[in-house]
Amino acid sequence: MRVIIGVMGPGENATPEDLRNAYELGQLIARSNLTLLTGGRPVGVMDAASRGAKQAGGLIIGILPSGNKNSVSDAVDIAIVTDLGQARNNINVLSSDVVIACGMGLGTVSEVALALKSGKYVILLNNDPKSYEFFYRFSPDRVFRTNTPQETIQLTHDILARLSLFETK
Amino acid sequence: MRVIIGVMGPGENATPEDLRNAYELGQLIARSNLTLLTGGRPVGVMDAASRGAKQAGGLIIGILPSGNKNSVSDAVDIAIVTDLGQARNNINVLSSDVVIACGMGLGTVSEVALALKSGKYVILLNNDPKSYEFFYRFSPDRVFRTNTPQETIQLTHDILARLSLFETK
Amino acid sequence: MRVIIGVMGPGENATPEDLRNAYELGQLIARSNLTLLTGGRPVGVMDAASRGAKQAGGLIIGILPSGNKNSVSDAVDIAIVTDLGQARNNINVLSSDVVIACGMGLGTVSEVALALKSGKYVILLNNDPKSYEFFYRFSPDRVFRTNTPQETIQLTHDILARLSLFETK
Amino acid sequence: MRVIIGVMGPGENATPEDLRNAYELGQLIARSNLTLLTGGRPVGVMDAASRGAKQAGGLIIGILPSGNKNSVSDAVDIAIVTDLGQARNNINVLSSDVVIACGMGLGTVSEVALALKSGKYVILLNNDPKSYEFFYRFSPDRVFRTNTPQETIQLTHDILARLSLFETK
Repeated sequence: MRVIIGVMGPGENATPEDLRNAYELGQLIARSNLTLLTGGRPVGVMDAASRGAKQAGGLIIGILPSGNKNSVSDAVDIAIVTDLGQARNNINVLSSDVVIACGMGLGTVSEVALALKSGKYVILLNNDPKSYEFFYRFSPDRVFRTNTPQETIQLTHDILARLSLFETK
Repeated sequence: MRVIIGVMGPGENATPEDLRNAYELGQLIARSNLTLLTGGRPVGVMDAASRGAKQAGGLIIGILPSGNKNSVSDAVDIAIVTDLGQARNNINVLSSDVVIACGMGLGTVSEVALALKSGKYVILLNNDPKSYEFFYRFSPDRVFRTNTPQETIQLTHDILARLSLFETK
Repeated sequence: MRVIIGVMGPGENATPEDLRNAYELGQLIARSNLTLLTGGRPVGVMDAASRGAKQAGGLIIGILPSGNKNSVSDAVDIAIVTDLGQARNNINVLSSDVVIACGMGLGTVSEVALALKSGKYVILLNNDPKSYEFFYRFSPDRVFRTNTPQETIQLTHDILARLSLFETK
Repeated sequence: MRVIIGVMGPGENATPEDLRNAYELGQLIARSNLTLLTGGRPVGVMDAASRGAKQAGGLIIGILPSGNKNSVSDAVDIAIVTDLGQARNNINVLSSDVVIACGMGLGTVSEVALALKSGKYVILLNNDPKSYEFFYRFSPDRVFRTNTPQETIQLTHDILARLSLFETK
């Protein structure tokens, strides 16, 4: 069974830095032989991470909020059509072995909260201190903050080792 | 069609003050002839708000995460069984005309985020300044902070007037 | 807690007979002091049952597939907004103590199947023999066939007595 | 983007013939360079189809009803954790470009109904005539019946050609 790394983040409101980080993070995830999961839409962090992973030869899963495959990032390999709207955010985090938030929008806030509630480890990449402090209060043992994609992939490997998950395929 | 006020908040980790506020808020909602919606479980803010509304003769809807009616607050009149786990949080906020968070847990964080994302007005009752500041950044026009149940119900009426919703039954 | 009777059936493709039966069934449910649950949209069996229950002074819950309250039967009192599309069909049946299918469309087929799978009792009102025979194979003890709304409400009461549910409010 | 073929069918109540068909069908799907999607659990048609596809070197997606990865077929590569119970059936069919039912249980009935309602083509493999006749009434243009896995994969290719979908990766 493949180890799945979820990369969440803003769609329409992603910053240029969020997009650069997401693209590089997608590349690093693919090069680590890990499978990327995103929200699947052709915009923002979802799209940038997917394109990065695609460029590096990875496998990309997109969990779409819509009821068909009409609006999906070109880089997604496997489009899961939920027709659940934002309720699909819970699937994003439950399916991911580690959750990474690259930037922060309201959808991302819901995903980090749901991930921590379900006991997942969450890495906040290059988030402002306020987001980290906010989530730290609720789950000090499971939320981490990193500054670069390289640092993030290293921490991801450390968490996977702690969880004793490793890529078997 | 009934106007629905959603009251969200911690379950197992609610503080005594959260519970007192939730109970009084439930009473005030019922006395305003508004319908209360909660997460339906027999614990924490959900249960306290439901019991308050029941004591005041109100109608209480509980949106359960589970797949049956075995674990529901005694005060719930209408149990909606979703079997969606935390994905039901999105139903809680989409069904509510105004969302009130009484205290703050990880589930509550997801609900406030989803409510603001969908364009709902959200009142944070007696929350620490950090939660208010956190959400204010994302949605300055739609998130409010109050200190007492009485202040909260007054603001709820003001918001409903702005939305031109009024109880017609 | 209120006893909830779910009435399912075709939307756009309901026959005149389905609509007459649904309206009368809605009336009988309301006069029995039972709460009606439907799919909430302003069309077909959902709408007719809701209008019948409303005319008789009942309480009507509509479980909407959409993400807002813009398209809901006028007769619905409590609109639950799911934004789940057809996945909301499972909520319809899990929330109902007895499920009644008035006519049969593809959505109705999914609801009857999910209801029987979850162990609910299902009454098929005035359905062609083929639908009854089809479902009978899978769940001979829990699916029933009736010819009139009056016969259906009587059987509903018999099932509720067997389930030891009774209206307490 | 990968073309996804969904194989649905009974879990605990699958017949030996269902299991043989599902295993062979999984093999044929994998050898056609198509991606298999199932309900993911380690039982019945889901498991047999997944094992067949795995044996033939395919990629297998499992859409789990549960909230974690504790109960998943060994042959699943990508486990999507929904925590939606039977509401996940709608995701199964919406994500599949063609839906194949191998045997028939109540969950399968709901999936075939939801698939046809959303406009998908559905193949019933080796089903009794009654199931085919039942669904044919609702959707005569989109439901097909086959007798063998070989005939089923051929028809799948014909449908994909009609839909102008082809494997691009």
